[in-house]
Amino acid sequence: MDMHSVDELLGNRVSWLADKGPEDDIAISSRIRLARNILGIPFPVSASQSELVKTVAAVEMAVKASKCFEDVFQFELRDLNKTDRQILLERRLASRELINKQTMASLIVSRDESSGLMINEEDHIRLQAMRPGCQLREVWAEVNEIDDKLSRELDFSFDEKLGYLTSCPTNVGTAMRASVMLHLPGLVLSDQISSVIHGVGKLGLAVRGIFGEGTSNLGNLFQVSNQSTLGESELQIIDRLDAVLKQIINHEKNARQFLLENRQNFLMNQVGRAYGVLRHAYVISSEETLNSLSALRLGVDMGMFSSVEIHTVNELFILVQPSHLQKYAGRELSSEERDIFRASLIRERLRKN
Amino acid sequence: MDMHSVDELLGNRVSWLADKGPEDDIAISSRIRLARNILGIPFPVSASQSELVKTVAAVEMAVKASKCFEDVFQFELRDLNKTDRQILLERRLASRELINKQTMASLIVSRDESSGLMINEEDHIRLQAMRPGCQLREVWAEVNEIDDKLSRELDFSFDEKLGYLTSCPTNVGTAMRASVMLHLPGLVLSDQISSVIHGVGKLGLAVRGIFGEGTSNLGNLFQVSNQSTLGESELQIIDRLDAVLKQIINHEKNARQFLLENRQNFLMNQVGRAYGVLRHAYVISSEETLNSLSALRLGVDMGMFSSVEIHTVNELFILVQPSHLQKYAGRELSSEERDIFRASLIRERLRKN
Repeated sequence: MDMHSVDELLGNRVSWLADKGPEDDIAISSRIRLARNILGIPFPVSASQSELVKTVAAVEMAVKASKCFEDVFQFELRDLNKTDRQILLERRLASRELINKQTMASLIVSRDESSGLMINEEDHIRLQAMRPGCQLREVWAEVNEIDDKLSRELDFSFDEKLGYLTSCPTNVGTAMRASVMLHLPGLVLSDQISSVIHGVGKLGLAVRGIFGEGTSNLGNLFQVSNQSTLGESELQIIDRLDAVLKQIINHEKNARQFLLENRQNFLMNQVGRAYGVLRHAYVISSEETLNSLSALRLGVDMGMFSSVEIHTVNELFILVQPSHLQKYAGRELSSEERDIFRASLIRERLRKN
Repeated sequence: MDMHSVDELLGNRVSWLADKGPEDDIAISSRIRLARNILGIPFPVSASQSELVKTVAAVEMAVKASKCFEDVFQFELRDLNKTDRQILLERRLASRELINKQTMASLIVSRDESSGLMINEEDHIRLQAMRPGCQLREVWAEVNEIDDKLSRELDFSFDEKLGYLTSCPTNVGTAMRASVMLHLPGLVLSDQISSVIHGVGKLGLAVRGIFGEGTSNLGNLFQVSNQSTLGESELQIIDRLDAVLKQIINHEKNARQFLLENRQNFLMNQVGRAYGVLRHAYVISSEETLNSLSALRLGVDMGMFSSVEIHTVNELFILVQPSHLQKYAGRELSSEERDIFRASLIRERLRKN
């Protein structure tokens, strides 16, 4: 396979951010990741260099033969510098584990970034598909089809009783992690978010901030995902997750409605100021940006800004991250320089609309 | 004379705010007030009710006979409620002393609000003229001409040795208070303002915030005026004041230039954010408004906003004050309601541009 430059991604129209999807006023995107391992090769953590190379070659050949992706970008991690690797993480194409790999590892991504697979992450294969809005069943259909095609070319480690075998025991079974990214400013502004997180946790699902541990409510973006992979089929897990997602989405809608009816000026003030700052600041931190983008997204959903499109806001959430800024700037930037460059990029994007 | 309603002022085009003037990027307006008293009538503080009435009648007649103003509004203070009185103060047409009068007192104002006189304030007559920018000599010529015309109709208390006699001894002599309102954001942002205020004080001139005692740097607007009225002619005082004003204006220009060259992003960030907030907030306090208007005015001076005219900003400094807001709303407003109404008025005015 030909190798590509990460720079080719930058001008890309990312379908899961730019297209419409069900409930996309609240649900930004749905993603499913499946772990698969090839029979007869040790898990990456204990594989030799030649076994890692063999895995990459086998998976690449299977991808080609199965035609499971139409047209792809491919990246070998050892070819990528730190910024390039970080770009893959910021675009949600690769996991933090993959981009930290110093051993032979690879990433294949469909041209519209809606699907792809990591090779030699924790497992031989981590297959993923993403779509805009809340549509886990559709994502499952897609990822399941890719998995079927690949399984005609590769023998996966599978136990009749347990299911798919994985490097980490917490993934054994379906080896599936299904998640939906939710934008919940209403629940945050009305101080209901912690009780929602607590309640969802009791149902065996996980809720966490999008931007990693300890980022709490940054950007009011949360990822809800299944915790367990054992004892249920993939569709049972998805249906259970879906039912909870519908409830959270309803809570969020009610919270927004309540704020709009009872604290309209407070709400419009938050939104208006956020837009004003994003549109006119010359220096802006990452934290203020994410929180302002969240308020702006809420305003766009409420119809306050006819000139701003929701996918512009969605894309900005990705573009304002440090490595994307440095790619656009064409050089390394200090934290202070990033705050200036970030403000300029946001002004430009919002002016375009 | 016919009495007018304060409401008639509200739609007025105020020449000293809307017209161009020398150095008006920094000097908003020049004003001269003269105190005059009529021979043979006690000062207002010790005059009887009938003497106060007599003073008003005599001055009104003199104004009419001398044709010293072309076309006027006239207000009797006893006809005005608290909001009406406050409007006169906010528009800088009357002093705080006048609007607090419970005894017979009156205000005559030319239609463009550029000149006028208070009757029975501390002295029988407090004559004033105002013009945009820094032009005290022109204001003096105007106020001197009005004074000449009035003095043909009225005998003023005048002592050959002391000059004009006034109720308060600190005004005796020229009985003139000349002042220029300066916008000094550059000196404030670069922490030079206190040393300028200190230096000007040593030259026998006074510098103070526009919005009354204790408001310090609110809106970065300062009034520079002469302290003494004795021992110099009017023109000597004005020339001395003018020389100092030129120096302050130069300091301010240098400070702006320095900020623009050395801290451009800091400066543009202050200005941009201020504009963004004014243009899009739904709740805004008086203090944040004045400081944001100051930054916006600086931005307009620097050519950052082609769509905003400087006189719109000048007028907003007046319109966002409490009594103006309540007049526009047509009712009394709580402090919370004012913050909402203020934001809406500013959004509307800035959208118009």
